[in-house]
Amino acid sequence: MSVRETVGEAAAAADALRALGTSGRAALLRGIAQGLDDARASLISAAVDETHLPVARLDGEVTRTANQARLFAEILEDGDYLGRIQDGEALRRVLVPLGVVAVFGASNFPFAFGVPGGDTVSALAAGCPVVVKAHPGHPRTSALAFEVLRQAVVAAGLPAGAIGMVSGFDDGARLVTDPGVAAVGFTGSTAGGRALYDLAVSRPAPIPFFGELGSVNPVVISPEAARRRPEELARTLTESIVASTGQLCTKPNLLLVPDGAGELVAHLRERFAASDPTELLNEGIADRFDSALSAWQHRVGARSLVESGRTPDGVRSAALVQLGAEDDVAGFEEAFGPATALLTYGDLKQAAGRIARMPGQLTVSVFAEEDELPGLGSLLAAAERVAGRVVFDQVPTGVAVTRSMTHGGPYPATTAASSTSVGGTAIARWLRPVTYQNVPLSLLPPELRTPEPALGVGAH
Amino acid sequence: MSVRETVGEAAAAADALRALGTSGRAALLRGIAQGLDDARASLISAAVDETHLPVARLDGEVTRTANQARLFAEILEDGDYLGRIQDGEALRRVLVPLGVVAVFGASNFPFAFGVPGGDTVSALAAGCPVVVKAHPGHPRTSALAFEVLRQAVVAAGLPAGAIGMVSGFDDGARLVTDPGVAAVGFTGSTAGGRALYDLAVSRPAPIPFFGELGSVNPVVISPEAARRRPEELARTLTESIVASTGQLCTKPNLLLVPDGAGELVAHLRERFAASDPTELLNEGIADRFDSALSAWQHRVGARSLVESGRTPDGVRSAALVQLGAEDDVAGFEEAFGPATALLTYGDLKQAAGRIARMPGQLTVSVFAEEDELPGLGSLLAAAERVAGRVVFDQVPTGVAVTRSMTHGGPYPATTAASSTSVGGTAIARWLRPVTYQNVPLSLLPPELRTPEPALGVGAH
Repeated sequence: MSVRETVGEAAAAADALRALGTSGRAALLRGIAQGLDDARASLISAAVDETHLPVARLDGEVTRTANQARLFAEILEDGDYLGRIQDGEALRRVLVPLGVVAVFGASNFPFAFGVPGGDTVSALAAGCPVVVKAHPGHPRTSALAFEVLRQAVVAAGLPAGAIGMVSGFDDGARLVTDPGVAAVGFTGSTAGGRALYDLAVSRPAPIPFFGELGSVNPVVISPEAARRRPEELARTLTESIVASTGQLCTKPNLLLVPDGAGELVAHLRERFAASDPTELLNEGIADRFDSALSAWQHRVGARSLVESGRTPDGVRSAALVQLGAEDDVAGFEEAFGPATALLTYGDLKQAAGRIARMPGQLTVSVFAEEDELPGLGSLLAAAERVAGRVVFDQVPTGVAVTRSMTHGGPYPATTAASSTSVGGTAIARWLRPVTYQNVPLSLLPPELRTPEPALGVGAH
Repeated sequence: MSVRETVGEAAAAADALRALGTSGRAALLRGIAQGLDDARASLISAAVDETHLPVARLDGEVTRTANQARLFAEILEDGDYLGRIQDGEALRRVLVPLGVVAVFGASNFPFAFGVPGGDTVSALAAGCPVVVKAHPGHPRTSALAFEVLRQAVVAAGLPAGAIGMVSGFDDGARLVTDPGVAAVGFTGSTAGGRALYDLAVSRPAPIPFFGELGSVNPVVISPEAARRRPEELARTLTESIVASTGQLCTKPNLLLVPDGAGELVAHLRERFAASDPTELLNEGIADRFDSALSAWQHRVGARSLVESGRTPDGVRSAALVQLGAEDDVAGFEEAFGPATALLTYGDLKQAAGRIARMPGQLTVSVFAEEDELPGLGSLLAAAERVAGRVVFDQVPTGVAVTRSMTHGGPYPATTAASSTSVGGTAIARWLRPVTYQNVPLSLLPPELRTPEPALGVGAH
């Protein structure tokens, strides 16, 4: 089936998906969650083969992905996501589905950010049919997850086309430019994301493109934290950096450490040198990791503290690079894999300045001691200015799927700083407001045909 | 001062504007409202000269603009706009200002959509410094309104640069591409808006562009409404079409009338022929009106029912064009001025199909009788699919500045269907979410340092 036909079938299912209503779509999402649980063994087996991620990690990811679908079911039942506002009798506002959503999943989370991931379930929750682009890194896993989605869609009484799938580079581009597609969700590289973003905004009728691209995720270690907790911080940070072989969008790529933190650096060197070599997702990822790491090593004044052990088949051990003290980190980009860079700073004011001048980030983290809090104001303000999540005394890896989560940030962290791709408000990406004026109750959409006290009432 | 310097001064005022807090910014907005009231006479006098709009209309517009600023003051005091969500103790989400906002106002509302209009006051409310691009159609009015804003900004204790102004075509383009600008608000033509949108999304770091471009605002008159109320509807519709010499973004450009509505059409012809010639805003608008009207008249099967009386100095009387019955309205665009087109339909199903195939609209309106309601379901569904506002038995002109208003819609009505440029939620355009994780109370922004019960609490 061509992209045009797949999108056409999806568009044809839009009315049925809307007509299911919030409770019907909540049931659909719970059906997807159950389907993922039921297919767990075969999903994990395919993903182990295709991604080299360990079973325990993939098992946890299936659980996370099923729970994510259940979170949106609860959000539908609450109804707050509908953004209903009423003025007097005549004006009633509600959020309605945008239309067919195209989803491009990531290589590193075949489930949570893949075919059955957050973009797909939040779009279905919103009432939008979905066409996923299967990731070339895990085609069998994608096909199995797609089967789960399709069975849940059919079991909900919807046309099968409410969820569609295409694959291949060219069909991905066709999907973004298809006139029947109303919005795009994307998780992946900055280069790939920007290319598809450019297609989306150059259409005769441009569409929103919610892309999560790249993030350095700087971590600032305060002078006192470095002095008092060198061993503990070295362990915590190394674990965060090498988890999932460093292939996490929130992995710290840059540690800002105070001058004279020799003990912390020594412990980091030791931990990095002792880390187990593990296999990256695929050869493309390994090649790009090697290039990015090489770019770090070739920055003016940079030197390797721990070299990455490499084998041709994509196995890598962790690398630690010390940047030159004068490095302004302009053009510094993430290395997607087990590596981080160290940059020293003189005082917290200088550290705040460095953070403030960075491009958009998913996260900025600060480790500090309680007696230092009064001096951290400008650093936290700088962190807020560039990031979607500001973390204190914890590592940024591990993104909780909760209502208040923001997994986003200014460009290039994402192409839409006002959005999040994880958490309850991720549904807002697929909705737009409509105000009904003077429309009789019987002609209002069901979401507005509720007793008035259920609606927010504006003062004007 | 160069655009770069103006934006630089605005950016330098961001921290002070944020530090004012919600109550301080509410006071700033009330200061702007008071300033508009105080300068009313000189503002109106300049605008009458520059726009040819009548005094009564401009006087009402100043009131509307001042009240708009006061609405955002109330919204700040409520605090709901902050989108605060909390999960347990550790995760707290809040919306923060995007940064410097560039505002391009419209020719037809020198106040409400001009220098002191909705884009400017909603951005200041959000905590974003603003640089306005003065409209070439009313430079003196823009300068006077800018003075009001600047005085209010200084009176609020802010650096004067928190509000800046540039003018001229080239500086407008420089403003959109300046790296210090974080978002753009625009109201104007489809061609001009798309050109600036293209600049915004092609930047090395793209920024959101909230443009309100063009809308046909179709109005469907049901068979029974046409039969029972021909005279009343002809009067109501004509008034809506010729108000402000047809220069309203929500002016009906297309009336869908049932076959055999001869009486309604006869009354419309009579009303249109009797309408007073009035002067358009400027010669550019008059030229574009003539071109658009000519495009209507040259569509296959079209014929003029009432010709527009024209004088070279921009005075026009109302024009009524009958489209061919087979016209699919593909490529049909608004004529910004006193004119509308008639298109006949066979039955309501056909009318619904025509609406569903239209591009994005600010409004779709339906006039019908109560006994017809059961047959209007698909028509209303089609209206929702293409429009930001669905109006029943009222004309679309006259956009209430209320909390529930949507003045937006899918492209080309706007470049961002998820937003509105009028009403309380217009502030959301200038905000992005940040989640604070495990951050001590003393380091949270003031908006989050509230007693916990004030925050929304997520279930997860």
